[in-house]
Amino acid sequence: MKILENKTISDVPGFKAIGIHSGLKKSGKKDLCVIYSEYPAVAAATFTKNKVKAAPILLNIEHIKSENTQAIVVNSGNANACTGLEGFKNAITMAEVTAKELSLSTHEVMVGSTGIIGVPLPIDKITEGIQTACSMLNKSDGNAASEAIMTTDTFPKKITVEITIEDKPVYISGIAKGSGMIHPNMGTMLSFIVTNINITKSLLSLALKDSVENTYNMVSVDGDTSTNDMVITIANGKAKNSLIDTKNSYYVKFKEALDFVNQELAKMIAKDGEGATKLIETCVLHAKTIEDAKLCAKSVISSSLVKSALFGNDANWGRILCAIGYSNGNFEPEKVDIFFKSKIDNIQVAKNGKGISFDEALAKSILEQEYVNIIIDLKDGEYEATAWGCDLSYDYVKINGSYRT
Amino acid sequence: MKILENKTISDVPGFKAIGIHSGLKKSGKKDLCVIYSEYPAVAAATFTKNKVKAAPILLNIEHIKSENTQAIVVNSGNANACTGLEGFKNAITMAEVTAKELSLSTHEVMVGSTGIIGVPLPIDKITEGIQTACSMLNKSDGNAASEAIMTTDTFPKKITVEITIEDKPVYISGIAKGSGMIHPNMGTMLSFIVTNINITKSLLSLALKDSVENTYNMVSVDGDTSTNDMVITIANGKAKNSLIDTKNSYYVKFKEALDFVNQELAKMIAKDGEGATKLIETCVLHAKTIEDAKLCAKSVISSSLVKSALFGNDANWGRILCAIGYSNGNFEPEKVDIFFKSKIDNIQVAKNGKGISFDEALAKSILEQEYVNIIIDLKDGEYEATAWGCDLSYDYVKINGSYRT
Repeated sequence: MKILENKTISDVPGFKAIGIHSGLKKSGKKDLCVIYSEYPAVAAATFTKNKVKAAPILLNIEHIKSENTQAIVVNSGNANACTGLEGFKNAITMAEVTAKELSLSTHEVMVGSTGIIGVPLPIDKITEGIQTACSMLNKSDGNAASEAIMTTDTFPKKITVEITIEDKPVYISGIAKGSGMIHPNMGTMLSFIVTNINITKSLLSLALKDSVENTYNMVSVDGDTSTNDMVITIANGKAKNSLIDTKNSYYVKFKEALDFVNQELAKMIAKDGEGATKLIETCVLHAKTIEDAKLCAKSVISSSLVKSALFGNDANWGRILCAIGYSNGNFEPEKVDIFFKSKIDNIQVAKNGKGISFDEALAKSILEQEYVNIIIDLKDGEYEATAWGCDLSYDYVKINGSYRT
Repeated sequence: MKILENKTISDVPGFKAIGIHSGLKKSGKKDLCVIYSEYPAVAAATFTKNKVKAAPILLNIEHIKSENTQAIVVNSGNANACTGLEGFKNAITMAEVTAKELSLSTHEVMVGSTGIIGVPLPIDKITEGIQTACSMLNKSDGNAASEAIMTTDTFPKKITVEITIEDKPVYISGIAKGSGMIHPNMGTMLSFIVTNINITKSLLSLALKDSVENTYNMVSVDGDTSTNDMVITIANGKAKNSLIDTKNSYYVKFKEALDFVNQELAKMIAKDGEGATKLIETCVLHAKTIEDAKLCAKSVISSSLVKSALFGNDANWGRILCAIGYSNGNFEPEKVDIFFKSKIDNIQVAKNGKGISFDEALAKSILEQEYVNIIIDLKDGEYEATAWGCDLSYDYVKINGSYRT
């Protein structure tokens, strides 16, 4: 597998993408994107488990049933959530206008929205924006698309990899947005992945569903699961490999690459959590079951006290032990070892559930890095899990506590 | 029921209490308290459900089995948690020394600790402190005791009520501490209630267990469940009412007063959450089941996004709807009405799951108050629940993110 540093979704054969400013964001920044497969394609998707689902989610639950999916239209700046029947009609209009411009059927278009909840969508601006965007697809630009889905994100999130199947180059390329309301159970987290692999819809769904569990669903920024979360992947078959319709070795190869793409995007989302100053990776080792490992890892990443401590570069392992203690994961407190790691250093701070004396200056220097790895060894079994999050800073409060800016 | 403004635990007949500085807090503030029943008494307790339990919790789980309980000894400044066998021995020593000073058996003493995790208790200072405190019980002072259990609390939490049973005055008086610490480590909730009612241990336990569910367990400051939480109540029978050994009308009267005491202490804890600028009370009405009502109410109180919005006086009802959506409580999103209330004003901001136009200036003026009530009407059944919390401010991050100051 190769990582293609300068490539993006519009470099995958058969895919075009564009991002424009349609007038939703007062800042004048890009707020509307269209991703288009020029050829028939299969798609898979996962959606938020929040009982309060935004209008585009409700629509997509129907549209994903289509055997053919060729476009995704997304606006930022307005979530089209808690907007009632009018909101649902607006989501349909977004699909309809896109379909008309691209000569598709309405159900072949997926719709995404992210931004403020409960405010009616300015559908006229969006309709006009979609028409403009579609007319500009000949100037395809995946980077513009990745910018157009941003809200409080501080950088666009994208990655492209290449694998080879039957001597044919297969590309998997994704863009994502994160920042606030991120606690994907499946959160506002949006991720769109395009690939030229030739695979059936059912196997693409299987691969995505499984991949999401261990990537986006292991990220927490603030414990809030959004009304709008979605991950959509579209495969157009243009690599012309023989159709993958069983879990063969090519499926495994593709799944590994898809996992990598999703994990990298998930880590970018965690790192760019609202107000975050660092990426925190929590690895739970030697748990009795995979479920125990996941519960413990997610609990640590979600703890406001752990997150505040890490913002303060405080090697406060007691809060970590406390967080796994209320996680509902099983473990034996008197067995637990805890380490802090940066990319260069490593320090043990607790052994068998108790503190040990350690070099506080070294610990502080590790915690001051932009990447901090917390290793929790439960010494209780064979399973492990990793979760990603960020620290809790003044800026999180500032971003979320300012009155409707 | 009467609220006795100027009374405290040491005013309940047969009880003495004292708080002193034993040397744990560098500030010189009080850090050790002893509560003593001069007469044989029955006790009930509830403890943290965190799998990582502090040494005093492990000891109390044994000691609460005793038919007689006459003392509680508590230190602040050190949690005696994650301290291994040595920590457990230290907890036993605290009970032993107290028992010796007060001529009790060791198992008749309950022990509490709150403060930094993972640091060995300076047992010599504490032993000396206990001896001093016990020798001062003749100068009984419940207010000093309520100060001695404080950590980052900004005010002591206490309340005393009087009810009449068989023409006899029955007092119920409690002191509590909330989340916060001298060393930024973890939030701990401690609550101690004394009463002169004559009741069996089993009915006292039943009353406490049920009361805790609807009071302390409906409070969230930061979602972190401490290793040290405990509520203990002691009843010495000195009111000489006929022994309450069934759920008769006197039990009901006592239970109502106990609920009131616990609810007031719970609200004080929420209001004094680390960095809090206001008390938030969330009432969920017309839920299908009590469980649905509780899940929804607690989810709102625990949401970092809702808490940040309220710090910013932002009437962001979309975040509230989102929080109940991921609560696991059942409801129909398109039925939900949301209101904000202060002690004087009331405004509806959402109806049938959608936003309605409202007076933003009035909403802001409501949210600027020190007490904000969020009413969520699910219009789906007959059950209701209330939860208490606070806003998320810069100071929360400051208090918990500063490096071991």
